[in-house]
Amino acid sequence: MCLNTGYQCKCLLEGDPCEPCRMTVKHKEAEEGQAGTTFEPEIALSSAVVAHKERSRNWGWMLSGILCVNVLILGCALVSGSAHDEINISTAHLQIYLIVLLILTTAWMIYYAVYTARQEGAIVYKDSHAGPVWLRGGLVLFGILSFIMNIFKIASYVGYLHCDSAVKVAFPVVQIVFITVQTYFLWIHAKDCVQVQKNISRCGIMLTLSTNLVMWMALVTEESLHQTTFPEYSPNETNHHGRRAYISKAGYGDDKCKCSHTSCSIFKEAYYYLYPFNIEYSLFASAMAYVMWKNVGRVADEHSHHHFKFRLREAVLGPVAGVLLVVAGIATFIVYEMEMKIDSYDNDDDLKNSHALMMHFVMNIVIVTLMSLVTALGCGIFKLDHREHVSEKNPTRSLDVGLLVGASLGQFIISYFSIVAMVATGAEGHLNRLNLAWSIIMVIQLGLQNFFIIEGLHREPHHEIHPVEIVANPYLKEKEMSSVGSEVDKKMPATIVLHDHHLQHKHKLSWKRRVVKEVCAFLLLGNIILWIMPAFGARPQFDHETEINFYKFNLWAAVVNIGLPFGIFYRMHSVASLFEVFLLS
Amino acid sequence: MCLNTGYQCKCLLEGDPCEPCRMTVKHKEAEEGQAGTTFEPEIALSSAVVAHKERSRNWGWMLSGILCVNVLILGCALVSGSAHDEINISTAHLQIYLIVLLILTTAWMIYYAVYTARQEGAIVYKDSHAGPVWLRGGLVLFGILSFIMNIFKIASYVGYLHCDSAVKVAFPVVQIVFITVQTYFLWIHAKDCVQVQKNISRCGIMLTLSTNLVMWMALVTEESLHQTTFPEYSPNETNHHGRRAYISKAGYGDDKCKCSHTSCSIFKEAYYYLYPFNIEYSLFASAMAYVMWKNVGRVADEHSHHHFKFRLREAVLGPVAGVLLVVAGIATFIVYEMEMKIDSYDNDDDLKNSHALMMHFVMNIVIVTLMSLVTALGCGIFKLDHREHVSEKNPTRSLDVGLLVGASLGQFIISYFSIVAMVATGAEGHLNRLNLAWSIIMVIQLGLQNFFIIEGLHREPHHEIHPVEIVANPYLKEKEMSSVGSEVDKKMPATIVLHDHHLQHKHKLSWKRRVVKEVCAFLLLGNIILWIMPAFGARPQFDHETEINFYKFNLWAAVVNIGLPFGIFYRMHSVASLFEVFLLS
Repeated sequence: MCLNTGYQCKCLLEGDPCEPCRMTVKHKEAEEGQAGTTFEPEIALSSAVVAHKERSRNWGWMLSGILCVNVLILGCALVSGSAHDEINISTAHLQIYLIVLLILTTAWMIYYAVYTARQEGAIVYKDSHAGPVWLRGGLVLFGILSFIMNIFKIASYVGYLHCDSAVKVAFPVVQIVFITVQTYFLWIHAKDCVQVQKNISRCGIMLTLSTNLVMWMALVTEESLHQTTFPEYSPNETNHHGRRAYISKAGYGDDKCKCSHTSCSIFKEAYYYLYPFNIEYSLFASAMAYVMWKNVGRVADEHSHHHFKFRLREAVLGPVAGVLLVVAGIATFIVYEMEMKIDSYDNDDDLKNSHALMMHFVMNIVIVTLMSLVTALGCGIFKLDHREHVSEKNPTRSLDVGLLVGASLGQFIISYFSIVAMVATGAEGHLNRLNLAWSIIMVIQLGLQNFFIIEGLHREPHHEIHPVEIVANPYLKEKEMSSVGSEVDKKMPATIVLHDHHLQHKHKLSWKRRVVKEVCAFLLLGNIILWIMPAFGARPQFDHETEINFYKFNLWAAVVNIGLPFGIFYRMHSVASLFEVFLLS
Repeated sequence: MCLNTGYQCKCLLEGDPCEPCRMTVKHKEAEEGQAGTTFEPEIALSSAVVAHKERSRNWGWMLSGILCVNVLILGCALVSGSAHDEINISTAHLQIYLIVLLILTTAWMIYYAVYTARQEGAIVYKDSHAGPVWLRGGLVLFGILSFIMNIFKIASYVGYLHCDSAVKVAFPVVQIVFITVQTYFLWIHAKDCVQVQKNISRCGIMLTLSTNLVMWMALVTEESLHQTTFPEYSPNETNHHGRRAYISKAGYGDDKCKCSHTSCSIFKEAYYYLYPFNIEYSLFASAMAYVMWKNVGRVADEHSHHHFKFRLREAVLGPVAGVLLVVAGIATFIVYEMEMKIDSYDNDDDLKNSHALMMHFVMNIVIVTLMSLVTALGCGIFKLDHREHVSEKNPTRSLDVGLLVGASLGQFIISYFSIVAMVATGAEGHLNRLNLAWSIIMVIQLGLQNFFIIEGLHREPHHEIHPVEIVANPYLKEKEMSSVGSEVDKKMPATIVLHDHHLQHKHKLSWKRRVVKEVCAFLLLGNIILWIMPAFGARPQFDHETEINFYKFNLWAAVVNIGLPFGIFYRMHSVASLFEVFLLS
């Protein structure tokens, strides 16, 4: 008899092969198998050895954790130092640190790949939840775009070689090697539950994670500086990309060093448009490395992963409405960006400027309002639709939820700062009122969407329809529960009384599922447009002056430049999660 | 037969009452009990009802989480707004927000206390790990000191009533009521595993948690501003507390509003010395509220908590050396503070200033070096001493470890920023070299201490000595393992062969335990002195100019003022954790 107590399924009767018992047996086998390969004494199963494993696991964990903290915080200090012009840490210093990290990580990944290929039984278990195909596909796609970006970087920086540090050319070269090796490594090994050399593997994976996070920090900082117009620098505006007048130190803004070939500026313009993809690449790789780290030494259940097919005709209304929203959003976004670019040439055209801004605000309010309404509908359906929650342990899902909530804080912070500024200044004028409305609806939308996605991810997939039970016969229940736990489609009504009810239930579910799928598809596309706008340079936070005047430039720039990268990542991550909810429901 | 698989103990044989099975039975009882009180239909045990509970649990969790995020981030925006003079959010605005929060939380706590007192069976289970006596004792102690601080505040602010907002007097009055109610509430209810009105309770507890965290943010910000000398303000230095020349907006620094009674400045001076205790009070309350939140709806195991006695004679050398360290530390700290205060009267005395700073650095290096060596010794003993890890679920311990690692990041960040600045400027001069050495040893000490505390907290208490096993007889092992799992002191050697070995093992353990206890006692006192110095105003980060010149004032002040509160909390929290390790080992 298996009882699901919320913690773990328990076996009370001998010989009933429900999930945890099989895992117990496997665990024993793993200990024996490993003892065989590492020449432990014959009493491998005794609890002393188990205790030893347990302890050495803890040491490896903590060591890798301390390693990660140190790499990250040193990186953080260097990144924030290199971001400020007046601080004597140049981009070259940061890049030397990154080059060292990238080389070490690449070396470890090659070592790991070679070692596991030679050693038999190195990878006994694979976590079926880790590295789903959309994540690995995304990694490859973003990897290719990052590769191209680095080639553009090399082409551009070669022109400065005669008067600037060679590190700026070396860095993209090393990064190309790193991206190639890492993409291969994660494609092949993302699902591994490493069983040999656990401590070395933990530290190696943690190094990979830390390197990607430091890379992410460096990229985000460079991108934020690039997108921020520092008011102090406006007199020196010489480049034709007016509004983004501030050139970060990486951008060769000073006139002392001139490019030796003519296509420099084209390459530079091109590679800045590829930055968002490299940022996402680092985050994808970090997420996969984290799941690998959690899976080291784990004895995962190899039960076959349900293969969901993505059928577009399951949802029609949602995708159509979503595509319309995306098209409208991109159209207004392009108009807005053009307007802002032109405005920066002749600064006196304030009316046109505010017109474009108003259009942008209205478009965003429409998008966010529609999304909120649709999400509320989805939450209502969840409330109606009774379905069990998955209680199985799953590091990938826990990470998803944690990242989702954590990343949403970035957008929350920006919105609340806007709300406070607008309320404090009395929200005078159309633009301020629109901005206030946008921020308030954004907060509502974020809350609802987090709710919807978390609830959606935790529900059982639709295969396992749970019939409403009427007869309280313990033997019957026992049978029925074990069938829910282990087998999926072999569902038969236990009594004739239940039969009708069951069918009716199934019918009711089908329109609910349909609505949930429509909701997911619409939200997915809505998140894509909300990702595109800030990722490709929309910064209404700096084009609209109220917050800058209220908080003064430095504080507001800090809030936006720290919050927005998380907000952008949140949209990206929501798209992935909503896709999963779409498949599950 | 019970097998400990790392996840949860599993029962493979019928009728063997090991831990999880009892929990399963209890879980069923709880469901039935609850069904009785809330008039659910008779089929309470059916899985449909379990699913319903599960789902409503998730809704309550998420709702309370969203509530918490919103309260916190709105608080964050108001706090950072009120911290800057040039932003149009005054302390009064923030205090109005806080007053609303405090009143709501107080009302909920009173409601909860009355409701649970009237309702029978509201609290069926108590988590024996939650709210240990040192935490509740600390809460009461800090509560009393915060109470006194608020009385001083009222006495001081009453003098300004004729020319300033009445909110500044109302706020400490409300806070006094809040502190009284909350201390009573947490003293009585900290161990509760709430079973009725779960969703309301979750939201209420989350509101308590958020309120305490917003209070903490507000207090930390005010304290940081008070301790920071803003260079721009130095010409206006008029108060006699020279080095702390900047008076935050709460401090009535402007000359327009004069106090109507003469003892204002005495009260003001006095209450600033009580600030660190109010900060710790908020954190203690937050930690206890978080554990209560995790425990809502939990069916905890009520196995008797081991009562450890604190016997001082178990360790002698460690406490003696520690007390000497504390005395020496306090002596140099007082000299350093006096020197800095005098220096701020006549600013030309640079030699004396640097002399005092050098003394402070040397003292800190000595303390941190000794602590690192002792911690390394402790880690070595752990490596030698084979003991099982506790695998039981325990939200209090997970929170402890999470907070420890999280809080240590604050000190890590300050140290790494120092290291980078020193290395980049070449570490010229005695002071810079000492500062560099201090930062490097600090990083090492933090890593080692985190390691030591986490390892110490996860080990089984010393009652359960695990004999080294030689005979691989499955029946013997089974018996022995179940006795480890359930009973504690009823230990008998299973075979005569094992007897001698067992005794020898026990003897060896005793000196190891002794050393671990000495190490804990020494580290505990070391952390106390490292807490006292920054908590009562030592800011070598601002007295020493290299970092300010390197990072410029704004960035460095941001790093120190965000990092140091966490660093101070880390020391405080380490003391508590080391005390627990002392008792466990």
